[in-house]
Amino acid sequence: MGEFDLIARYFTRPVRKAALGVGDDCALLAPAPGMQLAVSSDMLVEGRHFFADVDPEALGHKALAVNLSDLAACGARPLAFTLALSLPRVDEAWLAGFARGLLALADAHGCELVGGDTTQGPLNICITVLGEVPPGQALLRSGAQPGDDIYVSGTLGDARLALEALLGHTPLPADTLARVRQRLERPTPRVALGQALRGVASSAMDLSDGLLGDLSHILKASGVGARIDTHITSNLIAESAYPSSATALFDAELIRQCTLAGGDDYELAFTAPPARRDAVAAVSQASGTSVTRIGTVLAEPGLQLVDAQGQAVEHRYASFDHFR
Amino acid sequence: MGEFDLIARYFTRPVRKAALGVGDDCALLAPAPGMQLAVSSDMLVEGRHFFADVDPEALGHKALAVNLSDLAACGARPLAFTLALSLPRVDEAWLAGFARGLLALADAHGCELVGGDTTQGPLNICITVLGEVPPGQALLRSGAQPGDDIYVSGTLGDARLALEALLGHTPLPADTLARVRQRLERPTPRVALGQALRGVASSAMDLSDGLLGDLSHILKASGVGARIDTHITSNLIAESAYPSSATALFDAELIRQCTLAGGDDYELAFTAPPARRDAVAAVSQASGTSVTRIGTVLAEPGLQLVDAQGQAVEHRYASFDHFR
Repeated sequence: MGEFDLIARYFTRPVRKAALGVGDDCALLAPAPGMQLAVSSDMLVEGRHFFADVDPEALGHKALAVNLSDLAACGARPLAFTLALSLPRVDEAWLAGFARGLLALADAHGCELVGGDTTQGPLNICITVLGEVPPGQALLRSGAQPGDDIYVSGTLGDARLALEALLGHTPLPADTLARVRQRLERPTPRVALGQALRGVASSAMDLSDGLLGDLSHILKASGVGARIDTHITSNLIAESAYPSSATALFDAELIRQCTLAGGDDYELAFTAPPARRDAVAAVSQASGTSVTRIGTVLAEPGLQLVDAQGQAVEHRYASFDHFR
Repeated sequence: MGEFDLIARYFTRPVRKAALGVGDDCALLAPAPGMQLAVSSDMLVEGRHFFADVDPEALGHKALAVNLSDLAACGARPLAFTLALSLPRVDEAWLAGFARGLLALADAHGCELVGGDTTQGPLNICITVLGEVPPGQALLRSGAQPGDDIYVSGTLGDARLALEALLGHTPLPADTLARVRQRLERPTPRVALGQALRGVASSAMDLSDGLLGDLSHILKASGVGARIDTHITSNLIAESAYPSSATALFDAELIRQCTLAGGDDYELAFTAPPARRDAVAAVSQASGTSVTRIGTVLAEPGLQLVDAQGQAVEHRYASFDHFR
């Protein structure tokens, strides 16, 4: 199968919203008048972002999910995406699975595949996603104010726990591994929550490199500091909801590592004034996404971790950095 | 140097047209009301699209040029682009050169770098470019009509000739190699020509995989055939303008291979009715880009090659395909 057959078979579908889809030099979109366009690109590399033997359907899902998560963090509505794919060879079963996972998530969010590129080379997936947001309403990293509450959506640390188990660093019961592996391989972009947070959150971003490292971007952009309650964040690892697996997670330090600096969560971290707690609760309910208050924005720069007794928790958790 | 320092040092500049540039979860653009958005992605892989030891400044230029060429082929005006970069390691001299070449071409076309991604992995460059075009005016592949003239811009085959020489297949004098190598490593996207052809050309595309293969996409999309005058296309190799190098290019078959199926030309191929020849000439002059009439669109499907005497030329030139 050649390059054009491959594109035609797996990645070309009838155009829906776009003015022109796959198959010409460019795709053409007709943005809604007056809306701003949100744009983000993410590149996933074999051996770095995923294992070579990962289920291709899960990989297709994740490749788009991490991009939709960036739109969610801005409060943007997904519109369309391009896919550039470097493949070592044409493996039809792999391509069929990858396309299935990718397009199922795309359909769930009304986000249309409009173009891209395919080439031969080491496996690499680059997606650029486009969304729309009303002018001035995008959620930015720079709006956190002293006194604001700090929240995260969903759960924290599951993906990292799965990674530790898959790398052989931490034994996990099979049922526990199956659950956290889903969170590693099929993250849920919080698209509805992000849009609902427009006008409520003072700042937001998505968590890809670990809570503390990512939060530091909000703090830096906003010129503020924060205090985080680690007894709350430690309870956000999804496995804490399963008492049967408590023995596997007995190590409090491992839980802190996973929840505070785990990476690959693809949850939203955001801030909002205490006066908006009811609004945050309403947004959480309306979007069907749990959110948890984990701390407070401080005027003084720096990140403080405290335990249930308000005592300082020592930490040296590093954010994930591809070049460190 | 870490990932964020790298982005800050080489790829972050003050925002100009964008509402929000590098550094948040998404970039924000404010498209001009009523304009359509043209989107294209291209991925360049080391060893496939460029040699490992290529000048990084030239590579930065080329990575954006091939994307701008797609906008040109649609008649779109460049607006912004994202850059996703997978690097084996942080090489500051390489990054400085790459960024210099990339941003110089971006500035020349008013196309702003608004976001992207960096990761560690085999060298891979993925750019997504965004442009704007008035609704209904984009140049498509599907508009060629029987009787239309067929044109190409600039020169053909130089990049392939350089590649043949660099691979050791064809000896070339040093001055000739220097000239054609420029065309391989620093192609010129025909952005002004593309925009000027709106309302004049009936179809257009850019030449990346070789004239005949690329032209077949126009023919297929338009449901037509074509006759191409090979004595004209053979003269479009830039080296034909240098009599001193004629001996190096004595092989007419090599010239035909390079000009008809060379690849990496990044010229525009387009069609226009014979009644618009004056308009095409005016567009060529206004955009400072030579264009040459090389054939005619036929009602009957298929691609005929003829020589100066109108005799059929045998050909089996294959278009470049990454998976064949």
